[in-house]
Amino acid sequence: MAAWGERLAGVRGVLLDISGVLYDGGEGGGAPIVGSVEALARLKRSQLKVRFCTNESQKSRGDLVGMLRRLGFDISEDEVTAPAPATCLILKERGLRPHLLIHDGVRSEFDQIDTSNPNCVVIADAGEGFSYQNMNKAFQVLMELENPVLFSLGKGRYYKETSGLMLDVGPYTKALEYACGIEAEVVGKPSPEFFKSALREMRVEAHQAQ
Amino acid sequence: MAAWGERLAGVRGVLLDISGVLYDGGEGGGAPIVGSVEALARLKRSQLKVRFCTNESQKSRGDLVGMLRRLGFDISEDEVTAPAPATCLILKERGLRPHLLIHDGVRSEFDQIDTSNPNCVVIADAGEGFSYQNMNKAFQVLMELENPVLFSLGKGRYYKETSGLMLDVGPYTKALEYACGIEAEVVGKPSPEFFKSALREMRVEAHQAQ
Repeated sequence: MAAWGERLAGVRGVLLDISGVLYDGGEGGGAPIVGSVEALARLKRSQLKVRFCTNESQKSRGDLVGMLRRLGFDISEDEVTAPAPATCLILKERGLRPHLLIHDGVRSEFDQIDTSNPNCVVIADAGEGFSYQNMNKAFQVLMELENPVLFSLGKGRYYKETSGLMLDVGPYTKALEYACGIEAEVVGKPSPEFFKSALREMRVEAHQAQ
Repeated sequence: MAAWGERLAGVRGVLLDISGVLYDGGEGGGAPIVGSVEALARLKRSQLKVRFCTNESQKSRGDLVGMLRRLGFDISEDEVTAPAPATCLILKERGLRPHLLIHDGVRSEFDQIDTSNPNCVVIADAGEGFSYQNMNKAFQVLMELENPVLFSLGKGRYYKETSGLMLDVGPYTKALEYACGIEAEVVGKPSPEFFKSALREMRVEAHQAQ
């Protein structure tokens, strides 16, 4: 294994995931992963730029950052790249009005978005919101469109909570894709566009990032 | 278009679907499709053997046949090939104990099946039973198995009820397949094995059937 000095040669910035890297979610908001509060503090003291790139789609950035700060992390809202704000930009650019199949915790991110008479569907990690009724409603909206457009905030299979493994948005996106015979546009990791927007926001080139 | 006499030359038996062919489901049990009660009566008076091959997985065969008889159809339970009884045969043959993600209406078909300490999952059209909690439970059972086995009763995308289009089992099967990185074994149409079992029960060869 290369020494750290060698591995970091030319690196100017670090993109960090949040869930599963800084903390594990769960009852009562989750718990920091051992050593991560101190590791982040050390990174922040270094010459490296730090940015957070998350597929979190159950919480608004404000709520996410508030929770992380309470857990002891040095993080602010404008350091976070997240799929919901990125999706809002795309919706505005393309004049799309979404039907939202999302968690109530992230709904505030879409406050400025027109959701009347929807001409696309946005699916995010809705958790318990993935009822049959809500899935069927999103399916019916898509089937009524001449050109069905589905945005998926990430495509993760599952994530770990302190209580066990939990289904993420990806399986539910696959369900709608199969039902409607369409392919979703993924906003979030692993979409290269999403990583690039995080790098732009950090003002670091791809080859300078870890 | 060939005349009926020509098209039916050599045909000894007819396999009929039920939902969408004999009736459309919906509130209050659904409604016969116009002309289907009479068409079935005529078929039964002919020389042709008749068998019903359905992917219905929300109701037991008994309940399904009772409902169809009330709508005026000439049909009996032993004329119906359905995925739930076919799955029970496979489970017994392979010594498998399922976790059942199914509609309460079909649960009685599994009365004789050992469901303790499950070593596979059976998914059927659970309708409102496709809650996040129930999907996550099935997912967790699969992830705890060294060799995850998933049986899907059909793989339909959706079906039509009098109230509109409804998600069928297929999308939810795709969700679990993606989440676990596995492929389900489909019991029901379009599985060739399922059609063959219906033909065996009718005692008709494939080339003699319509």
